[in-house]
Order: sequence, then structure tokens, then C-alpha cells
Amino acid sequence: MKEKYFVFCFLLISVASHAEDGYRLWLRYDKIDDPITLKEYRNNIEGIQFNSNSPTLGIAKQELINDLSSLLDKKFTDQKTIADKFIVAGTPLTSAIVKTFFSAYNYNLGKEGFVISTKNINGKNLILIAANSDIGVLYGVFEFLRLLQTHQSIKKISIASIPKIQNRILDHWDNLNRTIERGYAGISIWNWHLLPGYIDKRYIDYARAEASVGINGVVLTNVNANSLTLTSEYLIKVKALADVFHPYGIKVYLTPRFSAPIDISKLKTADPLDADVQNWWKQKVDEIYSYIPDFGGFLVKANSEGQPGPQTYNRTHADGANMFADALAPHNGIVMWRAFVYDVRVQKSTENFGEGKVDANALTIASADRAKQAYNEFKPFDGKFRKNVLIQVKNGPIDFQPREPFSPLFGAMHQTPLMVEFQLTQEYLGQATNLVFEAPLFKECLETDTYADGKGSTVAKVVDGTTENYSITGIAGVSNIGNERNWTGHPFGQANWYAFGRLAWDHDLSSEQIADEWLRQTFSNDTYFVDAVKKIMLMSRETMVNYMTPLGLHHIMGTSHHYGPAPWIDNAGRADWNPVYYHRADLIGIGFERTKNGSDAIGQYASEVQKQWEDINTCDERFLLWFHHVAWNFKMKSGRTLWDELCYKYYSGVDSVRWMQKTWDDLKKYVDEERFEQVKMLLAVQEKEAVWWRNACLLYFQTFSKMPIPANYEKPDHDLEYYKSLKFPYAPGIGGNL
Amino acid sequence: MKEKYFVFCFLLISVASHAEDGYRLWLRYDKIDDPITLKEYRNNIEGIQFNSNSPTLGIAKQELINDLSSLLDKKFTDQKTIADKFIVAGTPLTSAIVKTFFSAYNYNLGKEGFVISTKNINGKNLILIAANSDIGVLYGVFEFLRLLQTHQSIKKISIASIPKIQNRILDHWDNLNRTIERGYAGISIWNWHLLPGYIDKRYIDYARAEASVGINGVVLTNVNANSLTLTSEYLIKVKALADVFHPYGIKVYLTPRFSAPIDISKLKTADPLDADVQNWWKQKVDEIYSYIPDFGGFLVKANSEGQPGPQTYNRTHADGANMFADALAPHNGIVMWRAFVYDVRVQKSTENFGEGKVDANALTIASADRAKQAYNEFKPFDGKFRKNVLIQVKNGPIDFQPREPFSPLFGAMHQTPLMVEFQLTQEYLGQATNLVFEAPLFKECLETDTYADGKGSTVAKVVDGTTENYSITGIAGVSNIGNERNWTGHPFGQANWYAFGRLAWDHDLSSEQIADEWLRQTFSNDTYFVDAVKKIMLMSRETMVNYMTPLGLHHIMGTSHHYGPAPWIDNAGRADWNPVYYHRADLIGIGFERTKNGSDAIGQYASEVQKQWEDINTCDERFLLWFHHVAWNFKMKSGRTLWDELCYKYYSGVDSVRWMQKTWDDLKKYVDEERFEQVKMLLAVQEKEAVWWRNACLLYFQTFSKMPIPANYEKPDHDLEYYKSLKFPYAPGIGGNL
Repeated sequence: MKEKYFVFCFLLISVASHAEDGYRLWLRYDKIDDPITLKEYRNNIEGIQFNSNSPTLGIAKQELINDLSSLLDKKFTDQKTIADKFIVAGTPLTSAIVKTFFSAYNYNLGKEGFVISTKNINGKNLILIAANSDIGVLYGVFEFLRLLQTHQSIKKISIASIPKIQNRILDHWDNLNRTIERGYAGISIWNWHLLPGYIDKRYIDYARAEASVGINGVVLTNVNANSLTLTSEYLIKVKALADVFHPYGIKVYLTPRFSAPIDISKLKTADPLDADVQNWWKQKVDEIYSYIPDFGGFLVKANSEGQPGPQTYNRTHADGANMFADALAPHNGIVMWRAFVYDVRVQKSTENFGEGKVDANALTIASADRAKQAYNEFKPFDGKFRKNVLIQVKNGPIDFQPREPFSPLFGAMHQTPLMVEFQLTQEYLGQATNLVFEAPLFKECLETDTYADGKGSTVAKVVDGTTENYSITGIAGVSNIGNERNWTGHPFGQANWYAFGRLAWDHDLSSEQIADEWLRQTFSNDTYFVDAVKKIMLMSRETMVNYMTPLGLHHIMGTSHHYGPAPWIDNAGRADWNPVYYHRADLIGIGFERTKNGSDAIGQYASEVQKQWEDINTCDERFLLWFHHVAWNFKMKSGRTLWDELCYKYYSGVDSVRWMQKTWDDLKKYVDEERFEQVKMLLAVQEKEAVWWRNACLLYFQTFSKMPIPANYEKPDHDLEYYKSLKFPYAPGIGGNL
Repeated sequence: MKEKYFVFCFLLISVASHAEDGYRLWLRYDKIDDPITLKEYRNNIEGIQFNSNSPTLGIAKQELINDLSSLLDKKFTDQKTIADKFIVAGTPLTSAIVKTFFSAYNYNLGKEGFVISTKNINGKNLILIAANSDIGVLYGVFEFLRLLQTHQSIKKISIASIPKIQNRILDHWDNLNRTIERGYAGISIWNWHLLPGYIDKRYIDYARAEASVGINGVVLTNVNANSLTLTSEYLIKVKALADVFHPYGIKVYLTPRFSAPIDISKLKTADPLDADVQNWWKQKVDEIYSYIPDFGGFLVKANSEGQPGPQTYNRTHADGANMFADALAPHNGIVMWRAFVYDVRVQKSTENFGEGKVDANALTIASADRAKQAYNEFKPFDGKFRKNVLIQVKNGPIDFQPREPFSPLFGAMHQTPLMVEFQLTQEYLGQATNLVFEAPLFKECLETDTYADGKGSTVAKVVDGTTENYSITGIAGVSNIGNERNWTGHPFGQANWYAFGRLAWDHDLSSEQIADEWLRQTFSNDTYFVDAVKKIMLMSRETMVNYMTPLGLHHIMGTSHHYGPAPWIDNAGRADWNPVYYHRADLIGIGFERTKNGSDAIGQYASEVQKQWEDINTCDERFLLWFHHVAWNFKMKSGRTLWDELCYKYYSGVDSVRWMQKTWDDLKKYVDEERFEQVKMLLAVQEKEAVWWRNACLLYFQTFSKMPIPANYEKPDHDLEYYKSLKFPYAPGIGGNL
């Protein structure tokens, strides 16, 4: 009782003083608390000159003036006359100084890049924030403010930065009724019912946050699409959002339902080769652009998980994508066509399994491996897509698992631009309660060599166009944002939004640097704190892999809601919705044989890549059970048997969470009370869930291995039947449920 | 574009400075901005002595110290030694001064009352905040802070306050999946999925807000109930919330689904006279109290709108309520049994109408009038309920309409305590977009004389127990709270939460005083601003009645979502779900004949009450069409015909909204930019909706009256077919949808 009472009082205090409720994200701009740094900044910044003649520059100027005034606790205004130690910001069109500077130095900044540079011009020491475009200036302002918020020295700055990828897009799986598919942070921030009349201030704060990390596109609606989105009633609502986003350099995209011509206008077909259908889409697209001149284009999920698509009419993905592309091309819009398809072939090969229990081992593996579907569907159409089509490929071949090898499509499409799609929302990564910093997951994929064009053809270089010379490039993240006060539910979920934006701009940034700068901006510049929490963040993803799906295991989560472990599930409607389909545990061993002896999914990779995985004895153990069915007594590199190694991984995963808890507890004095308690409670939940995962999985796999959990480990505190009995009818993230 | 740009900049500024996002409600406690008042306060408060030995007193003390420090911009702490001009707070058990004070003066404060008094004790001028109980002290602290926030003089205070009603309860219609039935401010703040491990700080802020207005009970779950709530898995979640609320004096209540013994434990029946069923409930209630020793009890909706209940087993409401009452009595729990039932009789009398078009005028009115159902169902059981049962009666006989006469049950149950149930959430009152201050609606009901025990037997006196000597008393408000940042969606929705709490404590407070103090605390003490906005608030409900349902019209809203006008609907599944059932417009006139010539619903009232309404020529015109079917050319008191009066009312409603807009626009300089813009946008939406209501209703009724809209009024800008064509598939507030 006493402890509780103290918690109350602490929380009460934080109400009265400055509440750290997380709403401000990494854009806090509180007064610099280190006196030496503050002094340096005050000494080196005497004033600002910032001519603005557009909404974007107006925003950039206000941002700079407000935040600088707050950081330095010193009033700044826009000054007519430049003096020594001034910041001068603008484009060659708005600032003579910038014009002079750009004449003297040759920068290749493109449409979005910027320069921040300390220069002596006309005898005055200036800090220049300069770009060719208004939006470049805004990006430069945010970068400059980041330097200050992370306490970097500004005595000598020389930064020239341009984004490596053109289209840096956040995908919202938000429905019109404000539910979010796989959303764990409340409901959609888009209040469709109140649009266009009511502009929630949150829309502006959202756009500001996006721009601060360089995100320049937003897909507003769920890929499981609703035709109503395209009615004029909703398009005026979309326009209202687009108007808010426009000055922040953000384009709006929609998800057209393939059957919209039927749904909205009662056409008899949605066949993409039908002239009436093509005409309907052209007119619809023209209508959209009449509302939103800088509309970005479409993201399409077709013929996947029940969505209609061109195959409904015996047409190809290329036929479907090209229909949209032709409608969008006159307006410079693009089509992002998702490669996440696994309908047709699997349905055919598993139709024998019906609704009942699935005998996973009886599957015709060679034809049915879901990991092969995307490649099989799209590889044949390489070169068949219009120039304004990108194929959007999930990072791995299955579905946003804690760990997957990269999708074999990266490196396989030499004539078709590929976007990579990451999932920020933690559908399979502990949802709203687990601290998992995803930058290492993103980086692991981006840095993997596809050997598409010889050594060095990393996924990043495929995606950014270097390897294949794509003329359009893109990267997408599935949003983890909802209407909770702190946007992402878990305070550390914000780091994944931040990391995605930063890597989309520059995939060469290290996970460590991103964690470092996010922590400094979001929490504190204290190096003890930053170093300790950085360790938590950098190990968090591997920790989760260990207690959920070590050694290449995958997709053994609870059916449908994907909450918690359920490796025993064998009665879901489709074979490849069942965990048993993926882990294939039996009395001999465990794992999905994807070599030539099995589904030969491995054959979809370049031969150099295959070599890393094809031999069970040399295979990277992180992917061992992904590619091999391995005997329980197989000798691992550690010297342990596979079973003992599995136990070791699951137990060390839990241990790591406990270490995270202890580390966090020691940091109490560095963190505001509100967020300290919040993270502490969530880490306790995470520890419980990690134990649950470990116990449930090991007890279940033990029914096959028949081997004991080593005696030196703590014993599971429930039996398998208990874990199998758990039900979560209102687990969040599923369509109608929240 | 330019205007938009300015809006951006203003909003941007408010991000950087102190954001008025509405989260702080009326508990802002910013530094007193009036120098004279500030000086008075500083001169009269030199220190605080506040001994605390309980969580409740700890909270009260922190609240007083923090808020006073903030209001006076002067650091206060708890002092050991009392000096002149000290605040001394506590109970006789915690403070010798309070003990002395209570010995000297005789207060009857009960369990929750408090005294705030300036007294000279032992030669020191003190401000005493004293009570018999810890919670009384907390209430006193909030009252004292309210004095300061509203700039009252504190030189001479003498306040003794006790609540007039014992159980002051907020009912949440929140579902376990976080949807809220009739919720318009986001989803439920109860995150069931994360409970009990994660205690959202919002739970504490919620409890604090409730306590600040004296609310002492919370029904956590929807009256359309889910049996899962009563499983131990959920009860530990309920306990976690109860633990947060307990020190704020708030009891937790649940809504048991009548069929829970069947749903949870597979009993064969839920018959309330079955011994196994009774035993099941006793055990379940014992289990609940083992988790939550101060659990409040049950709120039950039975045999209404599809909910199971005792009538399912041919038992009576008394049988059902008494079963729960017997289980709860040993723990001092109460049953609140809702009188909102209209199932059985209406179903019987209208079964001929089937699913198709309803001929409302062909109804057997005498037996089928929904307005009569509650009285008919409950009056016969007066005296048949256990002592710990209250019957919870909606303010009016139909369903939370913009205006209804009071329910005839008030005054009819001499041996059964009645609670009044108001609806704060604006289901029928413009939902999230209309500014409607509900205190005048609550007061209109509470102040009406039922003549139950002779003249002066107002609804308030029935409810507070004065008239009938009830030993238990209660009042309930259906919550308008969701997880939007400002709690209620519309900033002025907060005023309805506030007003409910204040009137539940003291129904003698005037609407004007409540508006006044809410405005001062929530916005500003500037008298020009307060006077102007008070006018808006005080006229807002009448304004809405005028543009929605003037002259006694009711229930002509869109079916199911109740959004917007739809008086033409005649095909809803049940007769009394159809607007045509309620307005009964025909070529002769309009209105529901409820005199002896019709359904004789009027006969359920005392004869003195009947006299006010029974004669069409003298009937209070606010209820004319509620009680009479009136000819279109009937001469109104204004001299206008009924039709012209109807036009006049609808047009003046719109005019009033436009006046509200103009008034608000003139107040720009008194309001922070964020909330100014927010309310401005919402008033613009309200104006559109008012015009929509006016045009749709008049055009529709005109098809019967065949009379012209007077030429001096602006013409409707759409035709009736347009209004009839509008569809809102994702209007919020309906179960699965949000």
C-alpha cells in the first residue's frame, strides 16, 4: 500500500509540473541543461535571418525561431540586417547570401537535400542552412535542431545531406471506422467522421514529426481497402488532410479497392483490360487530382488474403498495376503494388486440408511453401510493368517475423523497381508491451548482400537504385501510430518510427547512432543514461528473437491476433495459417526443409547466398530451422545439442529481459517519473510474456524431442495444458476488435 | 492559402510553448494572472500544515501544495509549526487544530462533507480545511482550490458542504474491446488488454478529475453487458482499476450479464428463483469482494433491447433485482436496476408490423406508447424490492432527447428509491460536434414538481430522498469520456462532465454558477469573456432544441447512429424505432396524442402535473407535440399558426448558432489559439448541421402541411431527396463501429 501511495504522489506531481506524457516525441526542445554546451550555443548564435515567402518556409522559420528560443532560453526573432554569428536560412530565391554561397560552392542537393555550413561571408561568421527547395530548408532546420538537441558542437559544421531514397512512405493500415489493423496504440488519428470540417491539431503535429525525420509520403488507408475511400464524399476529407500535409513536403496516397468500379458505380466487371474499367479509373484519378494536385498515387494489395485483384479476372499482376499506372501517369502519380500475395497456389495445393486439422508434413512442400509465393508470382513479370510502378516487397519472404532472411525478390527483379516494406507496428514483435528497437532488424535486411549484380549488391543498394539503376525508388514502413497520448503506446515504439524515417533518408546510419540521437532528444543527454539505454535498445531485438523464435523458427504466434505463443495450433482454416506448418516439429527434429531436399525455396536466391545456408553443418544458425529440418540431437556450434541450444536460447532471452529490467531500475534518477514508471511497468509485462513464450514453446516442443529441460534452469511454473488453455478474445489489432 | 499559413504558425507556436490541448480539464492551476487577486492570496496564505497518514490525505496534501505553489508562484511545503495565515487541513484524527475547531463548532458533515473556514485560533488567523473523513478533506481541498482558480476572495470564508445525494456515479458504456456505445471522443480509456500489468497514468488523472467534482462511483462497463467481465481473468483487471480509484473515494461497479451463470459456468438456467443460480451469484459476488473489498455493486439492464433478464424465465424485475441484492447485501453492495425497458409489451402490440414499413398511425396507441413502458413495468413492483436496490430512471420517459417531460416514475414509487440517469454523452444532442451545455437540461428535470407528496416534490427532492425518505440515494450520468487528448472531444463537453458532478453534489447550484466557475477554471477569469461565453452556454440547449426538435418533437434522428435528421424513416425493425412513430405527421397535423384521447401517457402523472399539459390550448408549448396531435393551422400563443411557429423555431435555432459563432469570433484575444480554433471549427460544423436539421425537417413536414416556408426566410439549398439520400456508414458510437 505504501509503495502504491508513493507512486500516486509522484504521478500527481508530474501533473502539476511539466508532464512528460510522450506527446512531444523527439521534438522536445527544452532548455539545454548542460551549461558548457548552452554557453557555446549562446556564444555562437547571435541572431537569425530567415526570409520566407511560402507556407513551407514559414513553418521552417517558426520552427527554428521557436525551438532555438526555447533551447537557448533566449528570445530570437527574424532580423533584417545580418550581423556576426547569425544563422541564415533559405534558398537562392529567398536569400542573397545563400545565392552567393551556392555560386561559390558546388553542391548536388537535388530537390530535397540541404547544406548546413559554418562560413565566413563578407567578414561575418555565419551558420548557413541552405537548400534548392523550400522543403530542403525545412529538413535542414530539423537537422540543425537535432545537432543542438544532441549537444553537438556547432563551431564548425559542414553537412551536405540528400536522401538516398526518393519515396519515404509511412503506410497506415487504418480503417474508415478508425480501427487499425495491427494497431496497438489506440485508434486511427484520422477522424474521418469529423473531416473535412474539423482539423485536429494532431494532424499538424503528425506532419511536423514526419518532416522532422524526412518522411515524405503517407498512405492514409488500410491495404485491405474500402471502396468508399474513393467516393467524392471521402475525397474531400482526404483533400483536407493533404492540405495540412502539403507544406510539410508530404504527399498523400490511397489504397484503391480493385473492385471499386463495381462497388461505387455498379460496373459489371473490374477486369483491368476492360475499356470501361480503365476509363472509370482514369476519370476517378482525374477527380482525385482535381482535389489534390500533388496526390502521390496508389498502394495496392490485390489477390491476397481475400482482396479482389486482376487474377479474379484471369489477368496478371502486371495487367492490374499497369491499369492504375496508366491512369496516374499523366499526373506523375505512382503505383506501389504489393508482392505480399499467397493466395492462389497455396489454396490449390492445400485444398485437401479443408477446415479441419492440418497434417502439415503431408503438404506438397515443393509447390506450397508460402516463402516462395511472392517470387513465383512476380519474377515472371519483371520488365512487364509501366515505368511508374514499384513492387513493394516485405523485408522477408513470410510476414514481418522477429527474424527472416531477406526476400529473394530483392536481387531478382532487374527491370522493376522494388520498394522494401518494413513493419513498425509490432504485430509479431510483442505488440504494445515489448521494448524492441527495430533498427537492427531493418539494418540486418538492408545490409544483406543479394549478389544480384555481384558482391556488394545489398538490399539497400537494390532499393536505393544503385544496383539496378531504378529511376524511381521507395521504402515503406507500416505505421505504429495511434491516438494514444504518446502516439505509439510503448514509449520506445517512438524510436521505431524515428529509426524508419532516419534510415529511409540514409540507410548508412548505424543502429547505434540512431538510438543515440533518439535517446538524447527524447530523454536525456546524460552519457551514463544514454550508454545504458542504448545497450538495452541494441540488444532488444535479438533478445526477443531468443525468447520467441530462436534459430530460424517463425510464425508460431497465436492465430489471428498473433498475441503470445501458440506453436500447437493445427486447425486454422488454411495450412499456412498454422504454426505447425512452419515449425514442422516431429519425433526426429524441427524446422522447415527449404533446401533442394525440401521446398527448395533456397533456390530463389543467388548461388553465393545459397552457399551460406544450404549445408546444415555450415548454415548460419540464425536461419538454421528456417532452411533445415534438424534432428533434436544435432550438434550445434556451441557443442550443445539442438534441443539444449533451443533451451539455452529461450532461457537466455528471458534472462536478457530481466537484465533490461535491472538496468532500467538503476536509471530512475535520469528519467522523469512518468516515463520511468511507464517503462518499468511495461518491462515487467515483457518479462512475464517472455517467460510465457519460453515455457509454452519448450513444453510443447518437448512433446516431440522427449528430452529434458536442463536441470540448472528454472522450471516452468505451469504445464502445457495451461498455456494451451489461454484465450484472448479481445486482443487488439484485429479489424473490428481494437 | 495565406489564412491557412497563419493557422499553421499559430498552432506551431502553441506546440513550443504551453499547449492548451484540454487534457488538464478544469484543473489547470496556472499562476493567477490578476495582480490584485494574486496579492490578496499571497498576503493571506503564508504556509500549510497538513498531516497525512493515508493515501487519500497524501493525495489531498500533494494536490494542495502543488496547486497552491503553482497558482501563487510561491513554493509551499508542509510545515511542522503553525504560524499566522496558515492553511491547516485534516481530520480530528490528524490535526489537533481541527479537533479543537470541531469541538467548538457543531457541524453535521457526514462521511463526505467538509468545512472551509477562516478562523482565529490561538491568536493565529487560519484557513481550515476540515472534515470527519479523509475523503472529505480531499473534497475540501478541491473546493478551496476552486475558490482560488475562480478568483474568489479568501479573506473571510465560511463554507460547510455536504453532498445532497449519496451515490454520485458515472456510467461508462465501454466495451471490453474498447469501443464505446454512444462514445464520440475516441475509445475507452480502460485498456483491458494491458490491465492489470500496465496502469495508464490516465486512470489516475481520471480519478483526480472525478474527485474534484465529487463523483464517488464508476460503472466501468457497458450496460449491454459481457459475461467475460465477471471471469477471474477480468476481475483482476477490475481490481487494478479499483486500487487506483480507492484513495480518490471512488467505488467501482460492474454490469453483470443476466445470463452469466450459463455463459461462464454452463448452468442450465439463469432463472433468478433457481437455487443454483442464486448460489452462483452469491459465490461470484463473494469472489468479487475478495478482490475488491469496497466494490460498489451492480448496474443491471435486463429484458431491454435484447439483454437477457428475469422475464426470460417468466420472473419479474423484482425477482431479478432481489437475487443480486441478496448476494450483495452481506458486503453492503447495492443494485441499480434500470427502468429503461420497452421490450415485451411493445413487441406484442407491434408484432403485426414485421420488418417492413410501419403504419405508425395504425398502432394500438393505448397499449403501445413507449413513453408508458417504464411506469407500467415498475409501478406494480413498488415496495417489492430489497432495501439495497435502487431503480435507475432516465430523466425522461423516452430516451435522452433534447427535451422530454420528466419520467412519470418520479413521484410514483413511494417505497423504492429512484436514481435519475442523465446522459452526458451527446447521443441525441449533436454528438461530438455541437456545443450544448447540459446543466439547463439536468436542472429543468430536477426542478420540475412531480407533486408526488404535494406541491414542492421536485424530481430533485424525490431523488435526494427528501420527499420519500429513501435510505439510499443516487444519481447517474452516462459518461462522455474517451481517449481523445481532451477527454470529451468537444472542448465544451468537459463542461457537461463538470456540471454533472457539481449538480450530483448540490442540485441547488444554478446552471449559471456552474458555467461561470467552469469557464473561469477552464479558460479565463476575464469577466468580458466569461459573461459572453456564459451566454452561449446557457442558451445552447434551447438553441439545439429549436433546430432539432422544437415544440415537443422527439426521436426524429437518423436510425441507429442517431446522427442528423431523419424524420422520414418508417422501415426500422420495430415500430418504436421509427421517427414516424414519434412525430405522427399527417395531412391534418403533427404530434403524439398522449392525452386521454390518445395513449393517455399523461395519466401516469399526478393530476396537478396533468393540468399543465392536458388542454391543447393551455399546454406548455415546449411539450405541445409531445402530448398532442396538433393541426397545422392551430393558433399558437405567438399568434402564428403551428406550421409558421415550427418554421420560426427551426430558423431561430440556426440564427442562434450563427450568433454563437459571431460571439466566439469576437473573443479571439481572450482564448489560447489552440482551443479558439478548435471551437471555431466546431461551431462552423454545428452551423452546417443546424441548417441540415432545419431544412431536412421542414421540407419533410411540408409534404404534410402543404404550407410554404415564410418568404422572409432563406430557402433550403437542397431538396428533400438530397437529405434523404445522405448515408453515414461509419458514424461513430455504434458498438463495432466507433
